[in-house]
Amino acid sequence: MKILVSNDDGIGAEGIFQLADALSEIGDVTVVAPISEQSAVGHSITMNVPLRVVEYNIRNKFVGYAVNGTPADCVKFGIKNLLPSPPDIVVSGINHGSNTAISIIYSGTVSAAREAAIMDCPAIAFSITNHKPKHFEYARKVAKELTLKVAEHGLEKGTLLNVNIPDIQESEVKGIIPTKQGTSKWADIYEKRLDPYGNNYYWLTGEMIDFEDDMNFDHIAIKIITLL
Amino acid sequence: MKILVSNDDGIGAEGIFQLADALSEIGDVTVVAPISEQSAVGHSITMNVPLRVVEYNIRNKFVGYAVNGTPADCVKFGIKNLLPSPPDIVVSGINHGSNTAISIIYSGTVSAAREAAIMDCPAIAFSITNHKPKHFEYARKVAKELTLKVAEHGLEKGTLLNVNIPDIQESEVKGIIPTKQGTSKWADIYEKRLDPYGNNYYWLTGEMIDFEDDMNFDHIAIKIITLL
Repeated sequence: MKILVSNDDGIGAEGIFQLADALSEIGDVTVVAPISEQSAVGHSITMNVPLRVVEYNIRNKFVGYAVNGTPADCVKFGIKNLLPSPPDIVVSGINHGSNTAISIIYSGTVSAAREAAIMDCPAIAFSITNHKPKHFEYARKVAKELTLKVAEHGLEKGTLLNVNIPDIQESEVKGIIPTKQGTSKWADIYEKRLDPYGNNYYWLTGEMIDFEDDMNFDHIAIKIITLL
Repeated sequence: MKILVSNDDGIGAEGIFQLADALSEIGDVTVVAPISEQSAVGHSITMNVPLRVVEYNIRNKFVGYAVNGTPADCVKFGIKNLLPSPPDIVVSGINHGSNTAISIIYSGTVSAAREAAIMDCPAIAFSITNHKPKHFEYARKVAKELTLKVAEHGLEKGTLLNVNIPDIQESEVKGIIPTKQGTSKWADIYEKRLDPYGNNYYWLTGEMIDFEDDMNFDHIAIKIITLL
């Protein structure tokens, strides 16, 4: 099985190493990922500057391809220019932090999978629900199992799986819930600061506002599971 | 009527001047737009670097705000930090080049309108179907008429209008067609070049492949209208 692995946290992130390492136990992995962090780039592709691609040593275990672009660029370029034939599946992640509700629109992790779906390739996006994740063992197991299942059975044309995994030990896991994309969204705040030269700059911040309250929706399911 | 105007071609583009100028005949226009071209950035937002905002003189006719970010950033920041209260409508464009079918996913122009819709504000994205447009008269008229209609009647929550206008004189216009988003997509090609230092770089190019053939779909409607 040929697996193309990408992400949005960048080719040096812990999550993509864990994903590539886990999936290399079940298939032939090629890593094509952004050279720098590309969180929240949505479905951006690079047209105004050319792409550059360099080989990148990932912890002496893989030689991946680092691209000066977005996750969607990496999937396009990987399938069109790097792999001799299309992969059986594209797997994105493991993102540091969940991807649910409105955040799916902004997510680079999901956009890698979406680009694969556009190119008629089965795809899964994995995220672990902590920006500084501690437990990758269970996420690795889920990633392997689901990748095998999707590669075997395929997905409906134009669809992808978006999977969020709590940052906990497997012994703490109560189950897996298929959910719908919630409509929760961000209440944005721009934090104003002054640079050393006396000029204003603004950091985007804010918090997620919930519009649903049951476990059928992704954002709520994670909130409830994490509090259990 | 308070109108927030943005685009993805950048605050210096011809299209946004034409749009702001036309809409200033029917309302109070505030321009908040990217300082540089942001085509194909999709629904990207800026989180890894802070935003900067500077006043920008648009042809001695408007003072707009130029943001070192994406169209979605501009709409978020404009509504949250620049306008004293939310606008009655957000209008994006006029994009140089059409936005149809799969391109809507990559479009910065549409993402400005989408961000407005997420923020529960009526929104329209306008594009003129030529990358070097010559005729803005009819586009200006359409923009004014539709903006007035949408501001008066509103749009269903979570929706926006995506409008493509042929680059022709009004006398050549045969009518207006409501269409569905087509599934036509790009057959990507990466054009490989060598820089002066002997290193490879790649330009994304390609052509649109059609999967539909009737005028009910946006991409086909424009193709047929342009050939009439």
